[in-house]
Amino acid sequence: MFEKILANVRENTPLVHNITNYVTVNDVANMVLACGGSPIMADDPKEVADITNICNALVINIGTLNERTIESMILAGQAANKVGIPVILDPVGAGASSLRTNTVYRLLNEVQFSVIRGNLSEIKTVHAGSGNTKGVDAAAEDVINEGNLDEMVQFAKMVSEQTRAVIAITGAIDIVANKDEAYVIRNGHPMMSKITGTGCMLTSVVAAYCGANPQEILKSTAAAVSAMGYCGELAHQKVEELNGGTSSFRTYLIDWMSKLDFTLLQGGMNIENR
Amino acid sequence: MFEKILANVRENTPLVHNITNYVTVNDVANMVLACGGSPIMADDPKEVADITNICNALVINIGTLNERTIESMILAGQAANKVGIPVILDPVGAGASSLRTNTVYRLLNEVQFSVIRGNLSEIKTVHAGSGNTKGVDAAAEDVINEGNLDEMVQFAKMVSEQTRAVIAITGAIDIVANKDEAYVIRNGHPMMSKITGTGCMLTSVVAAYCGANPQEILKSTAAAVSAMGYCGELAHQKVEELNGGTSSFRTYLIDWMSKLDFTLLQGGMNIENR
Amino acid sequence: MFEKILANVRENTPLVHNITNYVTVNDVANMVLACGGSPIMADDPKEVADITNICNALVINIGTLNERTIESMILAGQAANKVGIPVILDPVGAGASSLRTNTVYRLLNEVQFSVIRGNLSEIKTVHAGSGNTKGVDAAAEDVINEGNLDEMVQFAKMVSEQTRAVIAITGAIDIVANKDEAYVIRNGHPMMSKITGTGCMLTSVVAAYCGANPQEILKSTAAAVSAMGYCGELAHQKVEELNGGTSSFRTYLIDWMSKLDFTLLQGGMNIENR
Repeated sequence: MFEKILANVRENTPLVHNITNYVTVNDVANMVLACGGSPIMADDPKEVADITNICNALVINIGTLNERTIESMILAGQAANKVGIPVILDPVGAGASSLRTNTVYRLLNEVQFSVIRGNLSEIKTVHAGSGNTKGVDAAAEDVINEGNLDEMVQFAKMVSEQTRAVIAITGAIDIVANKDEAYVIRNGHPMMSKITGTGCMLTSVVAAYCGANPQEILKSTAAAVSAMGYCGELAHQKVEELNGGTSSFRTYLIDWMSKLDFTLLQGGMNIENR
Repeated sequence: MFEKILANVRENTPLVHNITNYVTVNDVANMVLACGGSPIMADDPKEVADITNICNALVINIGTLNERTIESMILAGQAANKVGIPVILDPVGAGASSLRTNTVYRLLNEVQFSVIRGNLSEIKTVHAGSGNTKGVDAAAEDVINEGNLDEMVQFAKMVSEQTRAVIAITGAIDIVANKDEAYVIRNGHPMMSKITGTGCMLTSVVAAYCGANPQEILKSTAAAVSAMGYCGELAHQKVEELNGGTSSFRTYLIDWMSKLDFTLLQGGMNIENR
Repeated sequence: MFEKILANVRENTPLVHNITNYVTVNDVANMVLACGGSPIMADDPKEVADITNICNALVINIGTLNERTIESMILAGQAANKVGIPVILDPVGAGASSLRTNTVYRLLNEVQFSVIRGNLSEIKTVHAGSGNTKGVDAAAEDVINEGNLDEMVQFAKMVSEQTRAVIAITGAIDIVANKDEAYVIRNGHPMMSKITGTGCMLTSVVAAYCGANPQEILKSTAAAVSAMGYCGELAHQKVEELNGGTSSFRTYLIDWMSKLDFTLLQGGMNIENR
């Protein structure tokens, strides 16, 4: 299945509409190209529905939201729901300001997402705003580790049930879950947190994978998370070999994604089904 | 002539005002510096005329246009026309949304461009909106190849006559034409389409070349297209040698432009006059 | 003292709120991470105070200002003053348009800055708008060199007295001064001016250093300027060794900052107290 998912991305070149932040947008565009997709960025309310209508997936990333682009996010999200393409939410910094938190709640109300990807803290904010807040205590810690993994898997499944979206919580250990099933992924390297944009890039890779495999949202998301993490491991190896630093790591991360096929990924992917 | 054009860029450090998109703006700025120019980005209606007035060329790139910046494009374009500096249009995604198409038509009506650079599909949209649409059928295919090259050269000359701008259609084969004369350029590498921004970067290199050589718009544009393509070839060689990927390619592309002089370019430029 | 300053940055991971331009924002974020800080970008008037309130320092960089973000700069600056965290101004292009110049004057009136970092021309504009313009003639040249160094040190001290901010004038030779004391720094390499963003990156490194050492604004600023310059020297060496160009230089600049500790810096820092 994962082999087919990767092959579909390279063969179909899914077009991904990204309404995203201006901090990491260039890396996002290059990463979408590297993984086999094609990126389009457009954020004016007057054109977002037109652009979404020609795309295979939509990313809504609130990293540098403003009043104009919030409007665009709603319009594009509703257009995507109408044509039935996957919509991926990256609730960057949800919880850090009322504007971000309230925008996430508004988006959750007015748009149906296929996948929501964030760190644990952001997903907790999503959870708190998704109506029925049963079991918020289950998510009391801010890091996923082997000790709280079962609890966190249950939490992810619960948030998926609330939002009817696949939930991807990324960190040292990653969880990708729908309400019934979860993947625990142990790929990646701590250096990924020493550059900006690994989260944003991953979200748009998820969109490319889902855009090319709209019937396999859960597995496509898991494949994207593992692929990104494994590229991080390979990039770190190269940094060590060449005595580089964090900016070289960013270059190698995208490089490896541009060279990744299933044969390569298979050698490193670390996915467990729970 | 090409030797003199390159020398003038390095000697005069043309100041290029870029109203451009936030996806590729950093690469554009670094590429303008690499080719010998100096970039300025400013997009607020309250300052664009001031900035244009101290510059040697203006780029209008509609990649992530919005209502505020469309206004700025018009104001800056008219200021540039008044002082007589070259204005270069990059109609990114023209045809993909009504907002983009209509903005291109408005710009063509209210600003006189020196050069318009786009892919074939974008230039067709320019053609369709430039009034007298004689011979739109001539541009039925979306790729320039050896089979339709003569036809495409005629098409470029016709669009140049309509718009009174030099037309640069870039792809696997590039055409740069005014109404009477054309250059066919066979430089470049397919990897250029695997990173974002090669088109935007080229447009701003064209602006730097034209800004330093305002009496030689056609030849300066052809030189810029060939220089960019040849840097793409050299960058690809280095990617192969060092077993890199697409992000390394981007780095090497800018690296080579920063080292390019006429002696180096002469060894690789592939320009034919038709 | 410098050793302690660097150690505090790595240990405390200061959170830096950047209201900055979209040209160099990605490099700024990666450089803040590389030096040991953590960047947040947010520029909507509805959230900037919330974000500033959770941060250790605020950067106001006017590189691509617009009406909406000018409002945000004022709001965030005042919030930062209220909670007492350092506020750093980068008056990019002050003097190039009335909008920029007037915005700088408004900012100087409504916000108390801890540090103002710019090139000589920008700092002259700051000086001209800071009320009492005694001795503007002292700043008649636009480059700091050994011949006018004493005069420039006096000028920096005077502007510091006017603005009650530490003044950092960067160029071939750098000056960091308060009204009583100055550091003259001879680190750096001319290649730093061949990429975009070295000024913006430095400003945000200053913010990270000051955010982690709020009682030592003058010395923290001097340390940041020297660290950045020395990383430029090391990056240039690597470009020479590997036969790279300007884009490789950018990568190595950030790489070196990510690897910099006091032991490394000590071997290259060139700071003189005047």
